[in-house]
Amino acid sequence: MTTTKGAASKERMLDAAIALMRHGGLAAAGMNEIVAASGAPKGSLYHFFPEGKRQLASEALGRYAGRIHANLEASLASARTPGSKVRALFRGLERRLVEAGYGQSCAVGAVTLDLDEDLEPVRLAAGAAFDDWRALIARHFDIPDRARRDAFAGLVLTAIQGGYVRGRAERSVRPFREAAAWLAEIAEREAGAASPVRRSTRRNLR
Amino acid sequence: MTTTKGAASKERMLDAAIALMRHGGLAAAGMNEIVAASGAPKGSLYHFFPEGKRQLASEALGRYAGRIHANLEASLASARTPGSKVRALFRGLERRLVEAGYGQSCAVGAVTLDLDEDLEPVRLAAGAAFDDWRALIARHFDIPDRARRDAFAGLVLTAIQGGYVRGRAERSVRPFREAAAWLAEIAEREAGAASPVRRSTRRNLR
Repeated sequence: MTTTKGAASKERMLDAAIALMRHGGLAAAGMNEIVAASGAPKGSLYHFFPEGKRQLASEALGRYAGRIHANLEASLASARTPGSKVRALFRGLERRLVEAGYGQSCAVGAVTLDLDEDLEPVRLAAGAAFDDWRALIARHFDIPDRARRDAFAGLVLTAIQGGYVRGRAERSVRPFREAAAWLAEIAEREAGAASPVRRSTRRNLR
Repeated sequence: MTTTKGAASKERMLDAAIALMRHGGLAAAGMNEIVAASGAPKGSLYHFFPEGKRQLASEALGRYAGRIHANLEASLASARTPGSKVRALFRGLERRLVEAGYGQSCAVGAVTLDLDEDLEPVRLAAGAAFDDWRALIARHFDIPDRARRDAFAGLVLTAIQGGYVRGRAERSVRPFREAAAWLAEIAEREAGAASPVRRSTRRNLR
């Protein structure tokens, strides 16, 4: 009972940290801000995160990474062709950006641009999140050359991060739309190159 | 004489702010940090920037935007073909990231992910910097369809920002290299589509 309540309040603190990080990176997610946003007593913050901000930030990014993994998986699995997978992915990002009033973006990206040298565990958590997402994206695209598939997934992830940065500064979904259009073109072309027979069949069926 | 000295110390404060922002966004560029980094007396900070952080941050981004404009122009003008322009641009970014020990990135990007609602002038300065860079990039690529040229320049800018985010988290230049390879391919293809005669001529001359 105590354990369940404890776990619930720990999760509430992590979720408060994630929301603050999505808005303003590590600098916005100070211990006091997390206490205020989560309603948890300050003592319990130090109880759950005895190593302080570094520990809390790493665990928050780990939790966030898992949630985004599930979102990415759902978006990519919701469509069948390479181009429509790309478009579904970026439509989801666009919706998130608009819903947040252009005031929140990826927690991992925002924290990364805030890192001091003494926060190496947090950087490692950020790098691990990006590695995981990139591998997940790569699994959804049927590009036969493995290096090329990985590089394509890398470009998709890069465009997600850059699209958030530009989208917030420009208060616009245009960066996501532009990226989606080019990346869908690449994805279709690479898939076409993978199966010329299938492509010519599709063309003949038009 | 006083004016010249005044201008010089103002520029020193702005440069200190820029360096701090490249490392940790707005949160890292507090008035105390700028005083410490620039060696300027605190009083002169308030003398030059009576509206405080908001004014200082906007002016620092404006100064930074001009400097990056010149860097981008030099990189893009240093190469002739579309693909080599892209590669020259990203080689320059790669060098900057490595020289900064993966600890600094674009000041505009880092500030953007730190913005509070009461800093609208700073957001506008960030948006203006991105608009200017995007237009500059577009002028260097000979893609006849204007919307397509603008969208390509947009993707280049998005990849720069995303490449910095991933590069810092992963301590790697791979995101820039991947982006450069794909974007160079697109640029060559678009230019080829623009002038099929020239392309076949080039091929015949090999």
